[in-house]
Amino acid sequence: MIRFENRAAFAAALADLPGPDGSALAAARARQASLTKPAGSLGRLEDIAVFMAGWQGRTRPRAERIRAVVFAGNHGVAARGVSAYPSEVTAQMVANFEAGGAAINALTAACGAALSVVPLDLDRPTRDITREPALSEAECLEALDRGAAAVSADSDLFFVGEMGIGNTTPAAALAAQVFGGAAADWVGRGTGLDDAGVARKAEAVTAALALHGAACEDAFETLRRLGGREIAAMAGAVLAARHLRVPVLLDGFITCAAMAPLFAGNRDVLAHCLAAHCSAEAGHARLLDRFGLDPLLHLGMRLGEGSGAAVAAQIVRSALAAHDGMATFAEAAVASSVSGAS
Amino acid sequence: MIRFENRAAFAAALADLPGPDGSALAAARARQASLTKPAGSLGRLEDIAVFMAGWQGRTRPRAERIRAVVFAGNHGVAARGVSAYPSEVTAQMVANFEAGGAAINALTAACGAALSVVPLDLDRPTRDITREPALSEAECLEALDRGAAAVSADSDLFFVGEMGIGNTTPAAALAAQVFGGAAADWVGRGTGLDDAGVARKAEAVTAALALHGAACEDAFETLRRLGGREIAAMAGAVLAARHLRVPVLLDGFITCAAMAPLFAGNRDVLAHCLAAHCSAEAGHARLLDRFGLDPLLHLGMRLGEGSGAAVAAQIVRSALAAHDGMATFAEAAVASSVSGAS
Repeated sequence: MIRFENRAAFAAALADLPGPDGSALAAARARQASLTKPAGSLGRLEDIAVFMAGWQGRTRPRAERIRAVVFAGNHGVAARGVSAYPSEVTAQMVANFEAGGAAINALTAACGAALSVVPLDLDRPTRDITREPALSEAECLEALDRGAAAVSADSDLFFVGEMGIGNTTPAAALAAQVFGGAAADWVGRGTGLDDAGVARKAEAVTAALALHGAACEDAFETLRRLGGREIAAMAGAVLAARHLRVPVLLDGFITCAAMAPLFAGNRDVLAHCLAAHCSAEAGHARLLDRFGLDPLLHLGMRLGEGSGAAVAAQIVRSALAAHDGMATFAEAAVASSVSGAS
Repeated sequence: MIRFENRAAFAAALADLPGPDGSALAAARARQASLTKPAGSLGRLEDIAVFMAGWQGRTRPRAERIRAVVFAGNHGVAARGVSAYPSEVTAQMVANFEAGGAAINALTAACGAALSVVPLDLDRPTRDITREPALSEAECLEALDRGAAAVSADSDLFFVGEMGIGNTTPAAALAAQVFGGAAADWVGRGTGLDDAGVARKAEAVTAALALHGAACEDAFETLRRLGGREIAAMAGAVLAARHLRVPVLLDGFITCAAMAPLFAGNRDVLAHCLAAHCSAEAGHARLLDRFGLDPLLHLGMRLGEGSGAAVAAQIVRSALAAHDGMATFAEAAVASSVSGAS
């Protein structure tokens, strides 16, 4: 199991990343070229199959064991009126996840994913990032470890999601810290904030950047100062998945913002990830662009919880079904071009 | 069962279209507003659920009986070198469909759709549209009827696909006839044509339009002169589905081109359809734009067979799973806004 015992262990894990299985990639590409369809005609479904082959190390990758984890945390900055909902809703929604009534329950069931829910000290919000670092070093390491511990090596596909009232504010702060630009470039309406709320959010992000910016010297420190428990847990989980060569579907704005400090530390850190979707939350498209990732879906979703990844998992399932189930030109006795015809 | 006994019956079926169930639409919208998520946060998944409710006439629509039909036909114009594959491949691929080895077999299995394959006189290609009408009146009516006969009233969701070497040429001719523009605006590489082949295709479309354009006085005559058996069958199937209030996922360029003459006759004809995807085939985005349809997926697919619709059916399944499975705010005891909190 991956552990982040201290800052140095986390930095080492981020610096030394395994790559995909080159022979599985090549074999999957060769298989794609042999299947009964014009070359390239399944578009991104072909790319997905090859990507999955590389990370699973199988010519015919599987989507049988899809695992999803939702991390939940509360945020001191929520007291500044940066969300349309009160912090109590985080725990209420965790209860809803556990009772099976949330969107992510239905969407994981639809794609055949097993769902776990990990609430992280909901009665102990992070400190207000406009005044202090969100987390202590020990708290940040614990959250990273809770994330890493949630990943199973035998997963065919993995994704994380989050629940945390107020968490688009630290997410915007992380994105702005890593990629620059004004706070207003990265803040959006979240769950449905009005204009005054958006203005308060931008002020909070600006204040947090002024306080912490110069001290954000590496990925760990950025996560610790500007992030949150569920944010650090997601980062730890996606990084641990990489070391286990488990392919990942990245969900929305918060998930991507959690990865931004890691991306700044090692631009290869998302190589085992597909971008599931582009959220309606304003900063997400900008983050995906900075990552160089082209999202699979554009459905105007903005719920979090891993909901976009759960829908995109259906696309991965279809891609792998075609890759695995189709006959080759030779098997089906189909002419592969004009020149191959009688 | 819907039948098109003569031109007049087809014209009447196109003129008099049923609408969705208004009370199911309203009840589905009300249900969406009560579910444990911020309003609108599932984006297009919410719209899909409401759309499906209206056509199924159920507040909680189902995606249990998804039915797909692939129609196959051959084209006299293929002799003009407008495809990268020989006409023999149409029958070879039908055998592949029947043996379960094609992309559409794997993709329908992945989304839980039942697949039927309807080959239409493969040893009797349509006439060359650059010289004659593709079909006689009786042949066109028969193809429309074969399409209509393939639709089951008890389908929760329906889609059609096609296989027909050379059929992007009649499809481009139909699109150009209905929406205007030069042949070059509507022809693309199809299954992988080179530049010379694309030029031959544009010439064929130009010649067909010059010969038949003035005589294309209505939807039937346009389909008969410029279409083909599988094209008319798809049009008949989608129109029959409308009369049965079965919602439809529209696949790619050929499917949409088949509907273009019907759209010209009644701009409401696609109200029971969702655009599944935007194909890489050049004319498809233009057709969707003319229809005013926003495709669910942009995955660069260009295979036909109904493959894009089969992938989009996964999105519909996810949308309906969320709509049906989620708890309401009242059921889950979740505060629905700041003002609703304790």
